Amino acid sequence: MSEPHPTTGLDDTVHQRVRLGILAMLNGPQRCDFTLLRTELKLSDGNLNRHLAVLEAAGYVTLTKRLDGGRPRTWISATKTGKHALAAEVAALRQLLERVDGQI
Amino acid sequence: MSEPHPTTGLDDTVHQRVRLGILAMLNGPQRCDFTLLRTELKLSDGNLNRHLAVLEAAGYVTLTKRLDGGRPRTWISATKTGKHALAAEVAALRQLLERVDGQI
Repeated sequence: MSEPHPTTGLDDTVHQRVRLGILAMLNGPQRCDFTLLRTELKLSDGNLNRHLAVLEAAGYVTLTKRLDGGRPRTWISATKTGKHALAAEVAALRQLLERVDGQI
Repeated sequence: MSEPHPTTGLDDTVHQRVRLGILAMLNGPQRCDFTLLRTELKLSDGNLNRHLAVLEAAGYVTLTKRLDGGRPRTWISATKTGKHALAAEVAALRQLLERVDGQI
């Protein structure tokens, strides 16, 4: 094994289970609202907020609050940097799966 | 999306970057020694010890100390439970990659 092990290049900001789920959900669509992320990823408000704050601080997502029928609604989008970070994670995971497959 | 998001089923004990690397390295061979894991995964002694303790407490690895030419050497093996836990992680990651691919 001369190449570095694929897990050595993983970025914990993206790899962490919940944040990986958030970035994966934001990869396709233009944006997701807070409630959809919370429901799909089975999170509490506090837990989702905490992980969104980490991703926002890293420059991986942006949050926009808008009134929707008088009620505040938070929309979340992945930035270009966030999409690149997910792509790097996905590439590393693919390498890892290839190694694990090769061991069987 | 009616199926649960693949990240909701990930087990943090296995998914964490360093521990995923350890279990992936132990998946093929009968056992690895401490030095090989430390070198391949670019870890300090303390960091590797800490993560091995988490995996051992979960019943995912066993540690065996033996004298080798008068020097103590630690061998690490994945248990059957540990290999099953890695297999579940790998299956969830595969689902995740399929979703991300489907979004492009």
